[in-house]
Amino acid sequence: MQKDEKLLDKIVSLAKRRGFVFQGSEIYGGFAGMWDYGPYGVALKNNIKNLWWKMFVDARDDVWGIDAAILMPARVWDASGHTGAGFTDPLVECAECKKRFRADHLEDKKKCPECGGMLGEERQFNLMFETRVGALEDSSAVSYLRPETAQGIFVNFKNVVDSVHPKLPFGIAQVGKAFRNEITPRDFIFRIRELEQMEIEYFVKPTDWERVFEEWREATGKWIDALGIDRAHVREVEIGDGDRAHYSKRTIDFEYEYPFGTKELSGLAYRTDYDLSNHTKHSGQDLGYFDEETKERLVPHVIEPSFGVERALLAVLCDAYREEEVNGETRVYLKLPTRLAPVKVMVSPLLKNKPELVAKAREVREAVRKVIPETAWDDNGNVGKRYRRQDEIGTPYCVTVDFDSLEKGDVTVRDRDTMEQVRVPISDLPTYLKEKIEAK
Amino acid sequence: MQKDEKLLDKIVSLAKRRGFVFQGSEIYGGFAGMWDYGPYGVALKNNIKNLWWKMFVDARDDVWGIDAAILMPARVWDASGHTGAGFTDPLVECAECKKRFRADHLEDKKKCPECGGMLGEERQFNLMFETRVGALEDSSAVSYLRPETAQGIFVNFKNVVDSVHPKLPFGIAQVGKAFRNEITPRDFIFRIRELEQMEIEYFVKPTDWERVFEEWREATGKWIDALGIDRAHVREVEIGDGDRAHYSKRTIDFEYEYPFGTKELSGLAYRTDYDLSNHTKHSGQDLGYFDEETKERLVPHVIEPSFGVERALLAVLCDAYREEEVNGETRVYLKLPTRLAPVKVMVSPLLKNKPELVAKAREVREAVRKVIPETAWDDNGNVGKRYRRQDEIGTPYCVTVDFDSLEKGDVTVRDRDTMEQVRVPISDLPTYLKEKIEAK
Repeated sequence: MQKDEKLLDKIVSLAKRRGFVFQGSEIYGGFAGMWDYGPYGVALKNNIKNLWWKMFVDARDDVWGIDAAILMPARVWDASGHTGAGFTDPLVECAECKKRFRADHLEDKKKCPECGGMLGEERQFNLMFETRVGALEDSSAVSYLRPETAQGIFVNFKNVVDSVHPKLPFGIAQVGKAFRNEITPRDFIFRIRELEQMEIEYFVKPTDWERVFEEWREATGKWIDALGIDRAHVREVEIGDGDRAHYSKRTIDFEYEYPFGTKELSGLAYRTDYDLSNHTKHSGQDLGYFDEETKERLVPHVIEPSFGVERALLAVLCDAYREEEVNGETRVYLKLPTRLAPVKVMVSPLLKNKPELVAKAREVREAVRKVIPETAWDDNGNVGKRYRRQDEIGTPYCVTVDFDSLEKGDVTVRDRDTMEQVRVPISDLPTYLKEKIEAK
Repeated sequence: MQKDEKLLDKIVSLAKRRGFVFQGSEIYGGFAGMWDYGPYGVALKNNIKNLWWKMFVDARDDVWGIDAAILMPARVWDASGHTGAGFTDPLVECAECKKRFRADHLEDKKKCPECGGMLGEERQFNLMFETRVGALEDSSAVSYLRPETAQGIFVNFKNVVDSVHPKLPFGIAQVGKAFRNEITPRDFIFRIRELEQMEIEYFVKPTDWERVFEEWREATGKWIDALGIDRAHVREVEIGDGDRAHYSKRTIDFEYEYPFGTKELSGLAYRTDYDLSNHTKHSGQDLGYFDEETKERLVPHVIEPSFGVERALLAVLCDAYREEEVNGETRVYLKLPTRLAPVKVMVSPLLKNKPELVAKAREVREAVRKVIPETAWDDNGNVGKRYRRQDEIGTPYCVTVDFDSLEKGDVTVRDRDTMEQVRVPISDLPTYLKEKIEAK
């Protein structure tokens, strides 16, 4: 980890400047806890989500994907325990300035950190966003934006079992938004109110949970490797009895060394049969599983590997951020793993006012794009500026078409990490780049 | 179009049985207007969304993707006109049973269609879902779940221009959830409360709008073709002056012959500078664009092609649904275009209790999967049942490994549409299937 106290500020600034992440509703002064993703941010985010889906759903025969609605009725959240004391944060209000704070984030529990006034009694604040669904005005209309994707999975357990007949052990996976009304959102895209989760509920025989827990612990490590995050920046933390979520009998957090502290990147929890049993009780539907082998009915237990999209994205940015001195100037680049880079190859003409260069560069670009779809075009500014921009976007290779290209049929390929430039024949270029990209 | 009055019921039933679409929160009696997607539904939905993104973002140099937050403050919706009369539906309540209805959906405007009681006065019901953000209790906390993704684009117009410097004309695209508190959700996944949109706001010089409108009209047609929807089932409808949305000067709806009527599949609207100008006024930020060529500042006008994910998915299912008599039994299959099929190839052993068949089939499956990632494994039931199941999922090719495979090194490949079975050498199989799949 680079011990750079300004790292977060630099990343926030790069993210805005280069079109990765913008403050939500920024032209209206911003909306705390909400963030919008620009062209490169959405590409990076999609690459992370698609990689996850490929690793944990497509490449496995024991995991099935679903996509449940964000809005679920209050009864779901009564069953899951989220309307109760299990999903609240302690809130205190200043008697003078009326500002509200999360009590466990304050050092001095009696004085307002802003105006110094007296803080009132601590009370429990539920983190779910409430809304009303339908045109009726009675309480049956109360609904909550889901605070976790997990319940969408549990509520569909029977549907998945009845439609695709999976054999134990098996998992159900989902990628989707979740919402938490954090009292004090902070740390850029880390503690936010609208977030995206990638979760698997993995159903096992009760006796198998410890073995499967270990398997997912390993799988989580491999996922962190795939993101290009140095494992030396990640630690596993066993969460103690008093600190676990209300449904969990064992939890390990994978914590990353973010610039603002070492904090949860992803979690692994043993949820027992807490959810299936509670939904059985509250819905009156039997959420058991009939084991064809033993001819017995059982309520599976659950191992839950849970990943935050934004937390992963932020860790990827922090781990990839590089600064170095080049000719007395600071060069900034994102050393993203190629599989995550929003743009894999950028092609440009040396000069944009020379039609023959532009035509040749377009031709080269189309040839490369056939093999590498994420091949972009950039003719803004001069070559030096383009390299600088693509470095900050994390583009592994830049191709420049110049006058020699017209004569000799070759182009310059520049490597993001080494800045080395080599000449490559245009005819070999797609294969050359594809091999480079697959190797990185 | 098959004139089958029960078509919708059949599709709803297939969708549940085969793991495409389930009612939201079904074990709790369902949640009106919300739908959950099972393993094959989420795969089909993702294929539709990815195809759209590839066609309209990745394959073009003039469109940039973003992903804005669902929650935006009330001021955004004041500016866009959604908190006003522009985004309401007429609501009437029965004086006796207290049920509420959408007035313009009723044939008899005076009598309750359920109990026959007197209906009360019509009033305007705003379709946005309201919630409160943050721990404060004053009105500054009021927020709405976005009823359209479009505003997330307009609010980020300046951010995109400042970060990636696009040249006019250019578009900003987004795929994401939107929420509308429909008074009476109905018609399966057609009129729903939680939906997903794929929208492009395409910014043009004011004088160019008519030409660009025509370009997007054509592009929309190509998109419908790519979905495998027969254009004979789609008609373009010019929306008249009184019926257009409050922001539009011209709108064409692309309507599809759904089983419940010919209704909007996607829309194309000329939004003028309505949104950018209103956000400039309400936010105090200049959302103009400086044209480098003419050295003039202007407010671009907007052409908006807008697509509903669920409406596309439902049209795809309706258009692909087939029934035919085979040996006195009804065979049902989904004639999905290969690019959308959740599973491209299914591999199975003839018998699952023969280890040598299973081993060979696994080997074949892995070889095919290297070339065609969406290659599934299915060993449930006998071969006939598997074909039947894969037909209903829309799997174009099924591969069966039998005893001859062990001796002669070939397998049976069955075609979904013709039910023809051919023997193909295992060594040729991946290439054979890849060519077939790319051709369809």
